[in-house]
Amino acid sequence: MSTSFNRRKFLQTSALAGASMLWSSKLHADQLTDRLSSEIGKSKWELDSPALLLDLDKLDHNLKAVSIPLAGTGVGVRPHVKTHKCPAIAKMQVDAGAVGVCAAKLSESEVMLENGIANVLMTGVNVTLPKIAKAMELRKKFPGFIQAVDNPQNAQDLQDAAKAAGIIADVVVDIDVIRRSGVPTGEPALALAQLVDKLPNLRFRGILAYDGGVQHVKGFEARKTRAHKTFEPVVATYERMKASGLNMEIFSGGGTGTYDMMHTIPGFTDVQVGSYVFMDCQYLEIGGAKNESLFDDFEASLTVLTTIVNNNYPNRLVTDSGSKSFTLNKPTGWVVGEPDFVYNAGSDEYGTISYEKSNKSYKVGDKLEVIVPHCDPVVNLYDVMYGIRNDKVERILPILARGKSQ
Amino acid sequence: MSTSFNRRKFLQTSALAGASMLWSSKLHADQLTDRLSSEIGKSKWELDSPALLLDLDKLDHNLKAVSIPLAGTGVGVRPHVKTHKCPAIAKMQVDAGAVGVCAAKLSESEVMLENGIANVLMTGVNVTLPKIAKAMELRKKFPGFIQAVDNPQNAQDLQDAAKAAGIIADVVVDIDVIRRSGVPTGEPALALAQLVDKLPNLRFRGILAYDGGVQHVKGFEARKTRAHKTFEPVVATYERMKASGLNMEIFSGGGTGTYDMMHTIPGFTDVQVGSYVFMDCQYLEIGGAKNESLFDDFEASLTVLTTIVNNNYPNRLVTDSGSKSFTLNKPTGWVVGEPDFVYNAGSDEYGTISYEKSNKSYKVGDKLEVIVPHCDPVVNLYDVMYGIRNDKVERILPILARGKSQ
Repeated sequence: MSTSFNRRKFLQTSALAGASMLWSSKLHADQLTDRLSSEIGKSKWELDSPALLLDLDKLDHNLKAVSIPLAGTGVGVRPHVKTHKCPAIAKMQVDAGAVGVCAAKLSESEVMLENGIANVLMTGVNVTLPKIAKAMELRKKFPGFIQAVDNPQNAQDLQDAAKAAGIIADVVVDIDVIRRSGVPTGEPALALAQLVDKLPNLRFRGILAYDGGVQHVKGFEARKTRAHKTFEPVVATYERMKASGLNMEIFSGGGTGTYDMMHTIPGFTDVQVGSYVFMDCQYLEIGGAKNESLFDDFEASLTVLTTIVNNNYPNRLVTDSGSKSFTLNKPTGWVVGEPDFVYNAGSDEYGTISYEKSNKSYKVGDKLEVIVPHCDPVVNLYDVMYGIRNDKVERILPILARGKSQ
Repeated sequence: MSTSFNRRKFLQTSALAGASMLWSSKLHADQLTDRLSSEIGKSKWELDSPALLLDLDKLDHNLKAVSIPLAGTGVGVRPHVKTHKCPAIAKMQVDAGAVGVCAAKLSESEVMLENGIANVLMTGVNVTLPKIAKAMELRKKFPGFIQAVDNPQNAQDLQDAAKAAGIIADVVVDIDVIRRSGVPTGEPALALAQLVDKLPNLRFRGILAYDGGVQHVKGFEARKTRAHKTFEPVVATYERMKASGLNMEIFSGGGTGTYDMMHTIPGFTDVQVGSYVFMDCQYLEIGGAKNESLFDDFEASLTVLTTIVNNNYPNRLVTDSGSKSFTLNKPTGWVVGEPDFVYNAGSDEYGTISYEKSNKSYKVGDKLEVIVPHCDPVVNLYDVMYGIRNDKVERILPILARGKSQ
């Protein structure tokens, strides 16, 4: 066990952490909304591009739709804010019945907590002493902040920092599913949970286990089969923890691809859905329980607005949205209303559309909406989303945790 | 010719443009530097990660090195700020002798002009009326702003907007090289240049022609051969323009991959080098005039600082820097000091390193520096670069044009 993290060290590191906590994202939000207030009421087609558009009716649909298959199952929704990085959307998710939200990183958690989101479960681990100290400062200020841990040394470091901060910190153990984060299932996971439970300044709240690999498996039944198969050692570990008398109030995991199948996992408490609010081509292609060819439980609410800047060559259009305002993720984006268009964002500043047939002819200056291949990294490029209703800008949604990868 | 853009329309659109111009990036810069001032003097290894580190000695080397092969050729350097999006670095480039800078987008140009960079050539075209109106407002305020045009309708729109703004706007014609932007070579280009030259509120300054395809051709001689071959129709067009009596004071193009060969193109005036300030794996791999296997004219000054968060499996490390703080561009990143490491940033939040051998063993919490595959999109994810000298933070460099893709 580490004894290196004493009060003296904590005070040094928390002083450093404190400096960057002085930064308030609220000021930034006010600047963004003030600057763009003149855009309210405009047609979306008048907006300067590239811009990120969010259809609010479709968003509203998605916020409700996610709970439908879960009704009566006892499984809740704990949306992952890494997708939208926007406290305003997190608030809508909480208002729609979420048990809390997940965040991937500490800086992202901080933005949510500072902007009125009371319950944040951070799914990533903090492993450096300054970051752990900062996490404990955050926990001191916001009791609804839950941290993950995935190795014994880290548990001890969290204990020392919590003690130094004079708090009892809420902790979940992250269970390894895809060899990325987490403690291996079985004995190591059980031992770690018992260690956390025993440490006086940590409060063991349960486990999380995220299977990133299954989310995009095509076909509902294939996905369900794999989700259960991959989760077998996690469930066995859960059962051992429960049998040993540990508090298993949280057993969190799953995602948009498995949101309607995780309630069949014993002990499972809540799904960490992220992309369901926006949808993207990757998820649309996996198929759902009701429609095997298109996953249409949720509507594609998010698009990139782009402008055609060059049409010199037949069957080819050049736009103003390349990888800096789109993403290199595959498949290519879907151009709304033009199913034959193939959108290539491989260039930094320009998009290139190639097609065999189009529903209309396009001239320079015309605008298009494109559904993105993978929503999370695209949102992370923009300062705001334009909230659109009936094709008009209704509100500005600042993406306050944009770039918060720390 | 368009007659739709009259004064009434211009006044409407410039009122809208004015609203977003009120936003000052200076305030944002002050906030960023104030917030991070406590980091000055720290060891780079103490910084929270992911973070973008810029080695200032290497940067200084690059700022000077770019001019060495150009000495006595008459060809100048017009660095492209799309790479760094940082007025402080643009200023260093100007201080090092640049004839001006290039910017890709209008919002990027605005940030540079507003932050003291006097001469900005915007290489992209503005094609919507509000954007053209805003561009003319910018030109009215900053006489060193030069705009590109690549079709006759656009030239007429620029004319109308310049007239409405009461100015004579400086314009270059963008010549098509890679079927992306620009007017086709030969007659269309000549006719467009003559049109611009004739329009009373536009001042024809010359041409630009960017060959994006040749920049990453491996091997100096192969690259040079292709650069000349591809440029043949551009040069022929240039000669026709010159013979027709047009003002050819600007013939701009090239990039980091061709910076030391473009002076052999007749009439060529300046190279639009971007990546040379930072370098990246894509450019390091192309080989240079002096070293066929490594393009070492410039030093790799830019790295992503990342922290190891999981080491549960042999020959595998998981870090805190995935695609949201790195890039999906290929090849994979190069881990400084560990030539055998393969860095995979395919996951949004996590990087994964696989290796057969390493020079030391790594524990959770250890930090690594990674040279990125392609620098431009990575810089566009961060708010600041940490300027490092002798491994210590010397200054904070705000990336004020981050996200300025409009």
